[in-house]
Amino acid sequence: MSDRVLGVLGGMGPLASAEFMCSLTRQTPALRDQEHVPAILVSDGRVPDRNAARLGQGESPLPALLRGIRILEGAGCGAIAIPCNTAHGWFDAMSAATPLPILHIVDAAAADLRAQGLRQGRIGLMGTAATLAMRLYQERLAGYEVITPDAAEMAELVTPAIELVKANQVAAAYAPLAGMAARLHARGAQAVVLGCTEIPLGIAAGPALPFPVVDTVAALARAALAWWRGP
Amino acid sequence: MSDRVLGVLGGMGPLASAEFMCSLTRQTPALRDQEHVPAILVSDGRVPDRNAARLGQGESPLPALLRGIRILEGAGCGAIAIPCNTAHGWFDAMSAATPLPILHIVDAAAADLRAQGLRQGRIGLMGTAATLAMRLYQERLAGYEVITPDAAEMAELVTPAIELVKANQVAAAYAPLAGMAARLHARGAQAVVLGCTEIPLGIAAGPALPFPVVDTVAALARAALAWWRGP
Repeated sequence: MSDRVLGVLGGMGPLASAEFMCSLTRQTPALRDQEHVPAILVSDGRVPDRNAARLGQGESPLPALLRGIRILEGAGCGAIAIPCNTAHGWFDAMSAATPLPILHIVDAAAADLRAQGLRQGRIGLMGTAATLAMRLYQERLAGYEVITPDAAEMAELVTPAIELVKANQVAAAYAPLAGMAARLHARGAQAVVLGCTEIPLGIAAGPALPFPVVDTVAALARAALAWWRGP
Repeated sequence: MSDRVLGVLGGMGPLASAEFMCSLTRQTPALRDQEHVPAILVSDGRVPDRNAARLGQGESPLPALLRGIRILEGAGCGAIAIPCNTAHGWFDAMSAATPLPILHIVDAAAADLRAQGLRQGRIGLMGTAATLAMRLYQERLAGYEVITPDAAEMAELVTPAIELVKANQVAAAYAPLAGMAARLHARGAQAVVLGCTEIPLGIAAGPALPFPVVDTVAALARAALAWWRGP
């Protein structure tokens, strides 16, 4: 048992951070309430759109992100998990503004790839247009060749599907997301990283994919659980 | 759109409060993140066991509940929802200790019964031994005849099933919970109130029951959504 309290900066989107809390709970080998990870979740969907901001079309989310971090600091949290890949575009600015460690979602995804026996080679990446444009994964994932959807596939499949999940139309998101993942697999990706926390929610709404994937919600929850247990 | 922020005092159990966040999100007619209910969840399973305390076998959860409420007050919340029926045994003490309104889960359940067209008559109630002993529903639900499992059924079916959910063995909880609900229905209950927030999680793990039920997680989420929208 650990006295650590996890801070979760969520709401981006709200269903993804709620699912993060479910995933964290389900992955904890607890027999009673008192053995689960104490956590504070700030689920504030009013954080300005990360995708629009990074693509130069909207206000910065950083002030709202820092307001959430202040709440987590004040509540006694010992580390922060952010179940939104795109928000990690502001990882350095957030880290500089808080003494708390922030668990990086790309590191969590990398740990999951390694746990699946994948230490190199070609992997597919699906995410928001901003996550791809910022090269969040390509810059931090060493040793892999990262392939991504092209601009037309983003516009026709991935971006609309992410918006469907944010609008609670999860089942409708399955077909475009599963189809895009299959295209990346067909192009030689050994595994596909579901690098936007809405994507695993859509993928969970239909049959499991017949190739390895990295669920970044579940991977970040595992990283949070490892932090809670301590070294 | 509302500027209100919902406070959620959770962790009792952790899976129930995570599912409350999912239910709140899914029931919100939002098209994008920014249209969802802003919420802060304190999920601290270390709150002393409510059942043991009410049955005279453990320390009071009240100090821990009030610590959670202080966090929600400090974070700017405008009301508090507590997705744990048994914790409502301390409702008056919590209400006296905070200026924030607390949305009562029994009122939420009553609203759901009315929405299902049930305004009087016999209803079944499943909950923890403490919820039943405190007569939380019987004292607050006017106009219904409330029937409950007997002591042997609590010991053999309901209490072990609630513990299974808290230990993440949700699928195994289905049979005893569904069986108990069917017994109450056979005894003339027009509807069965799933009056412990672990119970709807177990019931969701199998086929839907062929009679009306009140899911107190979903009902409390609807009450929270109604509060957020305002009068």
